Amino acid sequence: MAIITILGAGRMGTAVTWPLRDNGHEVRLVGTHLDGEIIRACQEQRFHPGLRRRIPDGVLPLYLEQLDDALAGADVVVSGVNSLGVHWIGRTLAPRLWPGAAVLSLSKGLEASADGVLRTLPEVLASELPAGLREAVTISAVAGPVLAYELSGRRISATVFCGADRDELLRLRGIFHNAYYQVWLSTDAVGVEVFSALKNAYTIGIGAARGMLEAAGGPDEINAAMHNTAALLFAAAARELSHIVRLMGGRPEGFAGLQGAGDLYVTCTGGRTFRLGWLMGTGLTYSQAQAVMQEDTLEGAFAVLQMAHILPVWEAEGRIGPDDLPMLRAIIRAITSDTPLALPWDDLMGVEQMFV
Amino acid sequence: MAIITILGAGRMGTAVTWPLRDNGHEVRLVGTHLDGEIIRACQEQRFHPGLRRRIPDGVLPLYLEQLDDALAGADVVVSGVNSLGVHWIGRTLAPRLWPGAAVLSLSKGLEASADGVLRTLPEVLASELPAGLREAVTISAVAGPVLAYELSGRRISATVFCGADRDELLRLRGIFHNAYYQVWLSTDAVGVEVFSALKNAYTIGIGAARGMLEAAGGPDEINAAMHNTAALLFAAAARELSHIVRLMGGRPEGFAGLQGAGDLYVTCTGGRTFRLGWLMGTGLTYSQAQAVMQEDTLEGAFAVLQMAHILPVWEAEGRIGPDDLPMLRAIIRAITSDTPLALPWDDLMGVEQMFV
Repeated sequence: MAIITILGAGRMGTAVTWPLRDNGHEVRLVGTHLDGEIIRACQEQRFHPGLRRRIPDGVLPLYLEQLDDALAGADVVVSGVNSLGVHWIGRTLAPRLWPGAAVLSLSKGLEASADGVLRTLPEVLASELPAGLREAVTISAVAGPVLAYELSGRRISATVFCGADRDELLRLRGIFHNAYYQVWLSTDAVGVEVFSALKNAYTIGIGAARGMLEAAGGPDEINAAMHNTAALLFAAAARELSHIVRLMGGRPEGFAGLQGAGDLYVTCTGGRTFRLGWLMGTGLTYSQAQAVMQEDTLEGAFAVLQMAHILPVWEAEGRIGPDDLPMLRAIIRAITSDTPLALPWDDLMGVEQMFV
Repeated sequence: MAIITILGAGRMGTAVTWPLRDNGHEVRLVGTHLDGEIIRACQEQRFHPGLRRRIPDGVLPLYLEQLDDALAGADVVVSGVNSLGVHWIGRTLAPRLWPGAAVLSLSKGLEASADGVLRTLPEVLASELPAGLREAVTISAVAGPVLAYELSGRRISATVFCGADRDELLRLRGIFHNAYYQVWLSTDAVGVEVFSALKNAYTIGIGAARGMLEAAGGPDEINAAMHNTAALLFAAAARELSHIVRLMGGRPEGFAGLQGAGDLYVTCTGGRTFRLGWLMGTGLTYSQAQAVMQEDTLEGAFAVLQMAHILPVWEAEGRIGPDDLPMLRAIIRAITSDTPLALPWDDLMGVEQMFV
């Protein structure tokens, strides 16, 4: 049995303790400086207030101050923070990791640097490590469609572990995989991370079909909705996502998997980001939609803002033309200028690109 | 402007008259021997009883007996029958087509011959033409996610025209394409047809997640549903569909388009086939689910029955192994033996296949 140390006691960091404990591993769950209340509740009541569940027997909740002890002998160090905490995780682990350490990152997202380079979050994490150590550890990442509420309810779930090291991925799979947490693998870390990060941006566009139907007064007299329109948007998203993955050196064929179609599908069956797109499809601006939802929709918009930085750079470098990625451009325009979403229906697919 | 003769006045055959008339073409809508009542209603009341809409001004409804006149000078002959009528269409057109004629088939599906060969419906149609004529006409086909109710309501829709002849596809696009009937193109007729035909089979499996949730008593105490499970099934379907397209010589990358992901997504957002899968996910057999739905679900099951004939042949030929396509096999087993659907969760993705 292995020792797993998780840094970050949020919902997803904690949810993976279910398969880990069911698989019989030693699990140390360490809160960040923001997780003090969570750790207290976990220690005193064995209850996670975010997940609203009793945590599995045997999980050891620890405060950040106990991190050094928690890392002793760890076979896997899991980064359980969200995308905003990746730099912090890197800096926190930098003086504490050892050659041969195995890191598994649960954070999804992309980060655009000031100079217009788009990096996956495992790359960002690695960049915080000292040069000698960076090459001496393995950093793998988790992506794919897993809601923490469902995983911690032992609903059948599947995820993708990705990284450069095939043997390391198989080792990690041996630790985490079980009947309700099925671990698929990919050596295409770039593709997996890009699909995963950008699905939210495209879900805004796909959700718009529902809002357009609402704005049109709903189904017509014979109950015709806008399924055709939704299908067009889903397909256009699939094409653009594959294009971006190819541009970044990933493998577009991964779209036919958990990281691509599986994740995009389920993001489009509900949730906050889909609802944001739905509201924007009715004609609301981003800020108006946020006001209606009365909640933070930054997760969906975050990748959009990242791509808003990157597209001009790619265009200047000649990697894309001004007519490429029209759906993403429309979504970027709506959100950055806070104007109604205007999808370019006639140009969603150029004739020269439509031949598959 | 072109002259378009449509043979088959069902819902889809009639729905394409909207973009055709809006684009200014001459449209002759010829009923089959089963469409007498439809043609009468179209002639006398300008009303299509299946679509429950007034047909566009200028569409000329004709009886089958007027077919010869209707074909005179036609720039495009549209086959508007469903998959069961393709042989009939082929035999009916065989003595009437001319060298250089352009046929566009709206029928979706695959046909397994008695000797275990799987053919696309355009191939079936072609097989009914005399040898000399077969090479002298072009047969293109329409696939992709378009509901006739919505197209005839001028909802923004997109479809794929596929065929071997790129120039012919561009010519057809010039006739049919407009703002609400966007025509994408593909020279991968096999891939497009296979994705299109098999999406219904896989939708049964994906829909099962909803039924499993129902059988489990619905969302749990913190509202965890089974989105994770649905995502896994969608991804497994994507993988298997791509595998089958590759086996048949098509281009699996087409999954990231209308014919693949777009069509599968929208089929999984509702409709009869999804509901069939949902009911089977609760534990009902196929015949029990049909009894609940009180309607014919053959469309979804048809492709399943075709594949039930084909898989043993492919296996005997060594084209697939006994563990390949486990999701499809489970769906076939449930429907052909009328037993509850038993999805092979642990084997949906073999380790050797999971690396993308």
